[in-house]
Amino acid sequence: MTQPDTLRGIGESATLARIFPRLPASDYALVGPGDDSAVMSAPDGRFVVTTDMMIHGPDFRLAWSTPHDLGWKAAASNLADVAAMGATPTALVVAIAAPADSPVSLLEGIADGLRDACLALAPGCGVVGGDLSVSDTLTIAVTAFGDLATRGPVLRSGARVGDVVAVSGVLGAAAAGLRLLFERAVVDGRPDAAAAAALRGTDAALVAAQLAPSPPISDGVLAAVAGATAMLDLSDGLALDARRLAAASGVALALSSVAVGSREALDGGEDHSLLATFPPGTALPGGFRQIGTVVAGEGVLVDGLHYEKRGGWDPYEQWSGQAG
Amino acid sequence: MTQPDTLRGIGESATLARIFPRLPASDYALVGPGDDSAVMSAPDGRFVVTTDMMIHGPDFRLAWSTPHDLGWKAAASNLADVAAMGATPTALVVAIAAPADSPVSLLEGIADGLRDACLALAPGCGVVGGDLSVSDTLTIAVTAFGDLATRGPVLRSGARVGDVVAVSGVLGAAAAGLRLLFERAVVDGRPDAAAAAALRGTDAALVAAQLAPSPPISDGVLAAVAGATAMLDLSDGLALDARRLAAASGVALALSSVAVGSREALDGGEDHSLLATFPPGTALPGGFRQIGTVVAGEGVLVDGLHYEKRGGWDPYEQWSGQAG
Repeated sequence: MTQPDTLRGIGESATLARIFPRLPASDYALVGPGDDSAVMSAPDGRFVVTTDMMIHGPDFRLAWSTPHDLGWKAAASNLADVAAMGATPTALVVAIAAPADSPVSLLEGIADGLRDACLALAPGCGVVGGDLSVSDTLTIAVTAFGDLATRGPVLRSGARVGDVVAVSGVLGAAAAGLRLLFERAVVDGRPDAAAAAALRGTDAALVAAQLAPSPPISDGVLAAVAGATAMLDLSDGLALDARRLAAASGVALALSSVAVGSREALDGGEDHSLLATFPPGTALPGGFRQIGTVVAGEGVLVDGLHYEKRGGWDPYEQWSGQAG
Repeated sequence: MTQPDTLRGIGESATLARIFPRLPASDYALVGPGDDSAVMSAPDGRFVVTTDMMIHGPDFRLAWSTPHDLGWKAAASNLADVAAMGATPTALVVAIAAPADSPVSLLEGIADGLRDACLALAPGCGVVGGDLSVSDTLTIAVTAFGDLATRGPVLRSGARVGDVVAVSGVLGAAAAGLRLLFERAVVDGRPDAAAAAALRGTDAALVAAQLAPSPPISDGVLAAVAGATAMLDLSDGLALDARRLAAASGVALALSSVAVGSREALDGGEDHSLLATFPPGTALPGGFRQIGTVVAGEGVLVDGLHYEKRGGWDPYEQWSGQAG
């Protein structure tokens, strides 16, 4: 039986040669990968940029996530930050550090996931540069770019009293998926690949929401065009992120528990859905649905009562130190 | 005696609050850090982008590099990739993952190093976004941007027979510094902080070339304005990088050993100096000096003989697995 190729076995150049052809091209690249830098088109004289890193342990378990999931989620979470500005994603650069004894198929799978997420969520967006390195801790750092097409960026600070509060995308599904994985895919205290695979059969949508989310990327531009006054990407849960939008705008967000759904929808992170506010009377675009109203005051109210639960996740305070 | 604050002790928000004020602002930022994405000005409708990661172990030893060195080198190495396109660096985004029990001063020192490198090497360039996370392996991922001010990018592929081969910046100093550190700052098989500190006294220039290099960033734009036909940043040593430029341009680079200097200058990596080719008769700008000529053929010749030594450093094949 032959062993799979490892990164150490074939080296950096051969690894790059196997990854490159899998990566999607960007419609905005004037000079793509291969020189010291890429050169990107920025048609309206500005560009949007965001960066986010995924780390083995605090951010994912290799027993649960496939390499394809990792690439997909790394792309999707960054694309959502671009969408939340009201921009069209144009490109990614990707730095990956992996243990030298990793199979080459790990990086091939990550590349395939990056490609498939771009194709599915943001067609025209591609990978224009990157860096491969070695590390004891598998790490994926993505920086994403977007184009505003002459519109102003939709900031967190523009919500006004009387605006409609709306959300596009799932609420609480990523947290529910993570809860299921911890409940049913841990064996003898360790994340278990077979149990996670079984969960994908019985609870496909919730597991996918956690491991390979599909945020409503194109709804970011639709919201901007419809006149959204403020917007952000729900990475730390609706309650905490709504509080951020409220604080930045100097208002309060009054939400309806019926419209929001479950408690997990309020507190669960990593949905990467879009929270936006619109002037009253706006026909809500795309997948947006009303969940509340902007009122005077501060913080977040649910059914008229201040909602104080902290929510979110602090990597320094809360990571157990386990990987798996 | 009070213990220093750790990342776990004060958490993500308080850590961010201590880092933010240390970071330099970018003259090109329309929306800076704090929203889902930053918004950057791209005056000529394009932008240059590059990304590079530094990993504890293969890329640095904590016994040798101060936190300030790490931030400085992470900025400098990325700025050099922007300069090598003939662009002016405009901004960085920085993702840092560190162990939760790290002192907060580690991240403060990295932030100070990022700031001081931008101020010294590329005034006007600043940090417009980032991401903090936790990892067992200290990791710094920088993505850098640049502006071409209506000029074409200087690629690796434009060298023509008869062009002058020139370099700006030190050759071999970073490798000599690393050699000194391995020779004189390893005690009982481990990188030693006191010995490295002593070396900073006796061999300041070589140690700084390795731990906190100062590539000639502004010479990138000067080269482009002077009509450079090809350019790249010397990260893997002159011989290997010259071979890359030769291959991309379909020519050979004939170098003079006297002009190049030592063998370490040919083979030593991490100088981040700029190698460029200019049409014959060009008055060489800034710190550029001639080291050879572009001739027909392929590869690199030194004093007329093909130079075949591989050079460079493969992280997958060559990292020992040690950190320290």
